[in-house]
Amino acid sequence: MIKDQEFIKNPNVPGPTKEEVRCIVICKSDVKLEDVVVDIGCGTGGLTLEFAKRAKTVYSIDIDPDAIETTQQNLKKHGLNRNVEVIEGDGFEVLDKIEKFDLLVIGGSGGKLPLLIEKGYKKLNKNGRIIIMAILLETCAEAISSLKKLSIKPDVVNVSISKGETTKRGTMMFARNPITIISAKKGI
Amino acid sequence: MIKDQEFIKNPNVPGPTKEEVRCIVICKSDVKLEDVVVDIGCGTGGLTLEFAKRAKTVYSIDIDPDAIETTQQNLKKHGLNRNVEVIEGDGFEVLDKIEKFDLLVIGGSGGKLPLLIEKGYKKLNKNGRIIIMAILLETCAEAISSLKKLSIKPDVVNVSISKGETTKRGTMMFARNPITIISAKKGI
Amino acid sequence: MIKDQEFIKNPNVPGPTKEEVRCIVICKSDVKLEDVVVDIGCGTGGLTLEFAKRAKTVYSIDIDPDAIETTQQNLKKHGLNRNVEVIEGDGFEVLDKIEKFDLLVIGGSGGKLPLLIEKGYKKLNKNGRIIIMAILLETCAEAISSLKKLSIKPDVVNVSISKGETTKRGTMMFARNPITIISAKKGI
Amino acid sequence: MIKDQEFIKNPNVPGPTKEEVRCIVICKSDVKLEDVVVDIGCGTGGLTLEFAKRAKTVYSIDIDPDAIETTQQNLKKHGLNRNVEVIEGDGFEVLDKIEKFDLLVIGGSGGKLPLLIEKGYKKLNKNGRIIIMAILLETCAEAISSLKKLSIKPDVVNVSISKGETTKRGTMMFARNPITIISAKKGI
Repeated sequence: MIKDQEFIKNPNVPGPTKEEVRCIVICKSDVKLEDVVVDIGCGTGGLTLEFAKRAKTVYSIDIDPDAIETTQQNLKKHGLNRNVEVIEGDGFEVLDKIEKFDLLVIGGSGGKLPLLIEKGYKKLNKNGRIIIMAILLETCAEAISSLKKLSIKPDVVNVSISKGETTKRGTMMFARNPITIISAKKGI
Repeated sequence: MIKDQEFIKNPNVPGPTKEEVRCIVICKSDVKLEDVVVDIGCGTGGLTLEFAKRAKTVYSIDIDPDAIETTQQNLKKHGLNRNVEVIEGDGFEVLDKIEKFDLLVIGGSGGKLPLLIEKGYKKLNKNGRIIIMAILLETCAEAISSLKKLSIKPDVVNVSISKGETTKRGTMMFARNPITIISAKKGI
Repeated sequence: MIKDQEFIKNPNVPGPTKEEVRCIVICKSDVKLEDVVVDIGCGTGGLTLEFAKRAKTVYSIDIDPDAIETTQQNLKKHGLNRNVEVIEGDGFEVLDKIEKFDLLVIGGSGGKLPLLIEKGYKKLNKNGRIIIMAILLETCAEAISSLKKLSIKPDVVNVSISKGETTKRGTMMFARNPITIISAKKGI
Repeated sequence: MIKDQEFIKNPNVPGPTKEEVRCIVICKSDVKLEDVVVDIGCGTGGLTLEFAKRAKTVYSIDIDPDAIETTQQNLKKHGLNRNVEVIEGDGFEVLDKIEKFDLLVIGGSGGKLPLLIEKGYKKLNKNGRIIIMAILLETCAEAISSLKKLSIKPDVVNVSISKGETTKRGTMMFARNPITIISAKKGI
């Protein structure tokens, strides 16, 4: 797993998704070398880079040009741009231009989460997986409700991490903001 | 409970203890209007001010002159200096100059926690309480081990708080650093 | 604060609200001796008893007869039934029979949370407070959204507690389920 | 990652390490197909099975015969016993019989953690990793202190997970007990 501090950051772009959260997302994604991955709201590129190492093709989408640039910089820095297509645009619209895929990861949705889930889920290949990362309370509820409408009971995990930093006096624990990871697998 | 933002802060002084943590400490302390309270490592004065409202006398001690000044500023701002004596010095030594007390709160110990607990516990009145707030992993273990040597089985609570902030998109949760509150009551 | 183990429990009734959560709710409630409190979804009576000690009158409501009985048993056990009226019924309907009040605490809403918040908020006295405790993700979002419609920006706190238990080997931390406390104050 | 419910459990044996924690441990371990792994205190075998899929050889050690049996049952159930040697015994002693290894995972130490870390670290190959999972407050402090004596500044992560369960009313979050993962890499 790439360390958090090994990413180029832009103060206007959220991320990267913290190392430990990337670990769990990668696990839940069950990503395979032959998979096509769509990463909507790629931000700094934290997850894009991890999927680039583990999948066949990754489409990384963000509506924010700064995010696009930062993701590209990070792909370049880590030599991982071989199988990644970075696309500036609205995830909901860009999705129309992509053929079927095996894994849809939504880190940001620009307020269109229910539509995005509905459209994205339809385009998932058989045994495809969908993962939504929610840092907003409302996004959690919305993602679960959207999946329920598709008759899917998702796996919901809230992750609170704190990391120790060594000080003269001892190991102080610094909290990272909690995140909820909502994941589901498509049947046939 | 005084709101976090109502405290005067000094960038070199830790604190104030977050509102929700003060709530729990005040509860665990079972502080009464006739109590004498000793607050070692008072920092910004967060707990000192809460005890000032609820106890007879509070001795607030800190080895750092900046902390002493900040606590005094906060007492003044909130009109709570009537029953508080603020003392600059090493808590372990200052403790010798204080008669018996009902409540000992240790927020910082300058590396002398076991000695402080031992001496402080002896000076507690019957039914007195001791509370240690630990932000370091090592302090937790040390406090519990010191209390065990006194044949006390403390109440140990780790508190992780995250607070919602309203953004355009929804309610984002921001984590506060976790803290462990170790408390015990003296028998006869 | 009453200890968790000092409550009579019924396996069919949720609660009591854990000690540390009661601490925070009592703090956030800013309850005063002259206050009238309405506690909807009182369950085991954890909060009802705490408010009974600190307010003028408490109306405790639950639609479940087992909860009503358990709350009454706990009030009796702790000698706190002097100023508490326990009412079996649907909180949304019972609210019509209560005059104005200073504090509305909602621990369970039987699926009518938005209506309950709207009606309850209107009946709050000036400077009244409303507190919703949410253990469901959906309740969090619903409570915040309902308050937003009333132009209120609530205080939102997620509390994760773990408690230490002494074992032969050391202090093992046992997690309590997280809870979100949403609170707001009425203006004029 | 194997799902928690896919493990055979024995009520007297701790574990399995929860899925999300296994995700993070596997990530932090940086395990490679050519690695030799030693898993001390294997319990139910949660981590043993994950390493069996990703390493060359795994030595799984536990002093408790029930743990040994449970680990063996799980290896068999999942068809993963090809490259695993399960050894009943005291980890500190068994370590003497194992040649050098690349990864030492300590989930339980029978009270000999400092000795185990010291001996284990010496036997690690160049670029080897050591991971301690601590569910006791004292173990955290002890692990960090033991590593400090070896001039190692470990990575310390406390992980608090809660999992959503769908109920009629909504998604209720159930907390798992927190765990601290302490990891370090050997230099030359």
